[in-house]
Amino acid sequence: MWRNILNKIRSLKPAQMIVVYYFIAIALSFFLLRLPGVHQDGKAINLIDSLFTAVSAVSVTGLTAINVSETYTTFGIIVLMFILQLGGIGIMSLGTFFWLIVGKRIGLRERQLIMTDHNQYNLSGVVKLIIEIIKILLLIEAIGALVLAIYFTQFYDTWGEAVLHGVFASISATTNGGFDITGESLIPYANDYFVQVIIIILIILGAIGFPVLIELKGFLSNKSGVFRFSLFTKLTTITFGIILLLGTILIFLMEINHRFQGMDWHEAFFYSFFHSTSTRSGGMVTLDVSTFSEPTQLVMSMMMFIGASPSSVGGGIRTTTFAIAVLFLINFARGREQIQVFNREIHLIDVYRSYAVIILAMILTMASIMTMMILEPRHSMIEVIFEVTSAFGTAGMSLGITSELSTASKFILMFLMFIGRVGLISFLFMIGGNNKKAKYHYPKERVIIG
Amino acid sequence: MWRNILNKIRSLKPAQMIVVYYFIAIALSFFLLRLPGVHQDGKAINLIDSLFTAVSAVSVTGLTAINVSETYTTFGIIVLMFILQLGGIGIMSLGTFFWLIVGKRIGLRERQLIMTDHNQYNLSGVVKLIIEIIKILLLIEAIGALVLAIYFTQFYDTWGEAVLHGVFASISATTNGGFDITGESLIPYANDYFVQVIIIILIILGAIGFPVLIELKGFLSNKSGVFRFSLFTKLTTITFGIILLLGTILIFLMEINHRFQGMDWHEAFFYSFFHSTSTRSGGMVTLDVSTFSEPTQLVMSMMMFIGASPSSVGGGIRTTTFAIAVLFLINFARGREQIQVFNREIHLIDVYRSYAVIILAMILTMASIMTMMILEPRHSMIEVIFEVTSAFGTAGMSLGITSELSTASKFILMFLMFIGRVGLISFLFMIGGNNKKAKYHYPKERVIIG
Ligand SMILES: [K+]
Ligand SMILES: [K+]
Repeated sequence: MWRNILNKIRSLKPAQMIVVYYFIAIALSFFLLRLPGVHQDGKAINLIDSLFTAVSAVSVTGLTAINVSETYTTFGIIVLMFILQLGGIGIMSLGTFFWLIVGKRIGLRERQLIMTDHNQYNLSGVVKLIIEIIKILLLIEAIGALVLAIYFTQFYDTWGEAVLHGVFASISATTNGGFDITGESLIPYANDYFVQVIIIILIILGAIGFPVLIELKGFLSNKSGVFRFSLFTKLTTITFGIILLLGTILIFLMEINHRFQGMDWHEAFFYSFFHSTSTRSGGMVTLDVSTFSEPTQLVMSMMMFIGASPSSVGGGIRTTTFAIAVLFLINFARGREQIQVFNREIHLIDVYRSYAVIILAMILTMASIMTMMILEPRHSMIEVIFEVTSAFGTAGMSLGITSELSTASKFILMFLMFIGRVGLISFLFMIGGNNKKAKYHYPKERVIIG
Repeated sequence: MWRNILNKIRSLKPAQMIVVYYFIAIALSFFLLRLPGVHQDGKAINLIDSLFTAVSAVSVTGLTAINVSETYTTFGIIVLMFILQLGGIGIMSLGTFFWLIVGKRIGLRERQLIMTDHNQYNLSGVVKLIIEIIKILLLIEAIGALVLAIYFTQFYDTWGEAVLHGVFASISATTNGGFDITGESLIPYANDYFVQVIIIILIILGAIGFPVLIELKGFLSNKSGVFRFSLFTKLTTITFGIILLLGTILIFLMEINHRFQGMDWHEAFFYSFFHSTSTRSGGMVTLDVSTFSEPTQLVMSMMMFIGASPSSVGGGIRTTTFAIAVLFLINFARGREQIQVFNREIHLIDVYRSYAVIILAMILTMASIMTMMILEPRHSMIEVIFEVTSAFGTAGMSLGITSELSTASKFILMFLMFIGRVGLISFLFMIGGNNKKAKYHYPKERVIIG
């Protein structure tokens, strides 16, 4: 019987396997979060909310129907950190790591698996890549934790507390988990620019995409003076930067006479910059985002919908999808057939992929918004839109309605977080079944468009 | 000097010419609406609202910042009917008609012009086509006017009044103008199924697309028994039908325990069916749509965004664009490279076009919603979304905020109505400048998507 199941798993396509593995990770996390000693005395939560936390942590989203600091023990918080690492590093990478540790050779099948998870196209060096991923992520987290723990000693009575808060904040920021054990995200540090800068750096390092970090490392350690960044790195980094900057400017301008009224320019700037970063998928806040005006909340929703870089801890349609859509539009209007950017041509299949991802993302989010509006008549439209895009972009910010939602709505959000983490391309290939080429052709016929 | 201007116009591309002609039509309509005798005594309106009415009528949208029946004289109403015809039949077709009347031969340039307006790809038979368009439209309008005028005699004191109301309702429905001279759209006929059925038929005939009507005529007059409907006709008609049906079902289900509570099933059905039809671009209402629940209003907004068939009096991204996007997604998920439907293959260039139209439409409507939300803090998000999609889809329904909008918002709506009527493909080619093929190629490089 086990052999049968194993054979069935082996016959799955990589994209389908990814989904299976994520399911297993969620099941494991759910089990861990139900262990005795995880909940504070008398604070046991129901099964749905445990599942919700498990999905949210594996997908490093950060939406929760419960208050973490009031629900979990220190042991529970350590379990949560472990789940965030599972999600952040990627189950495939971690799996590879364990394989390496126990000395097994990585076969082509496992390589393909990892490849699909991080959407890499180059088969060679995948193993090296995964080790790099884990090394880099742990290094970033360790530095972040060290800096924050030392800094936090001034706020906490014991070293133990300072270290717990420092490590948790570092992991939560770097994995873009967005969870907090302060009970109110980073609002206690709303005027502490040092903490905010550290957190912003950690969030960006997690959300910018691992290939970018690896190329950056290659560039820094390169001595020949000739180093070419890949088209992907250029495209995703510049898009990431433009969205981050544009978001900061928009939030600043839209709230300067509203929420930021009477503030110093640097206060207003930091609030804008921090929450623009958070939409990249960080999910932490330094103020109650429900006090922003509706247009600002809508801008943030759109930014969360776009999300972070591919092969990062973030979700959404991803920066490259958005960039290719915009570049396609510009080139199409100019009557050009190819998208040329940075002296390179975008491959046609990638244009197709971006189209499929955008259409599917639109259908999924619109259907979710519609359904949740019907299910939650007490909540306003922007509250629902914000919640849905936050789940899909695995950002985890909320206008405060998560705990009041019906079970059906919670399942919708879990589905969106799952999809957001797995990525729409993997999801599409998963539901798509067998890749068959058409064996016959029909005559082509034009139709009238737009 | 005139020769210079004429030469400049001649050097324009067809898509650019279309835009120029629409501008002229709006200017002419604006001038006509400022003629003495158009306004009732003491009911003169400001220039912005006249311009708004002109754009709304030329684009057969039906949004107005003023109450038509309380503002315009009978002469004004006749002027309005003339402008609706200008918009409905299409300025290009009308231009061709006049050329024919004065006996001039139609050159290739003029043919191309008409071709772009109705996005036809077959050059031959364009002149015949235009005559067909006008004949069919006038015939439909005449029959509708006759039926309605006779029926209306029971409600009005004089034959004159009944005829005026019958003719106006018929033109407003067939051109999908959506204007009314009752002061409250079709609400007076909310329980009159006869009037509603006639209006629904007229709206659908206008919005289904002229190529469909012409092929239908060909099919009906065909005696050989062998008649093949084009891929376009099949695709647009089936999509139109599915959206109409789905909209009816959704409105029915979503309002049955809300707005339709306590109503007979046939009443609820007719309200659902009528307002689903209206989103295709008809724009008339039999009840105050602001009394629907928010989810229903959002569904209607999405339906208006999709809009009617190409080469019809409707707007939006058009049915074929939507259909190709969905078909593309399904085929992509199945790993197929070509879209096969009705034993035909969709041309690649049409897939590209649909992508460009959807991205541009998303950017335009989202930017409009954002800006109007900032400009109109007194109005709710759904009111703004409904207004924007109604303008873009040239539907003309409103949750009642049009007259309270700022001048800036009115200009945004005018822009959207204009784009909605011209069509995004024409608009893209207009702003795109010269169609140049790339003279050199860069190496292709893959990037990671979604
Ligand atoms: K997050
Ligand atoms: K209309």
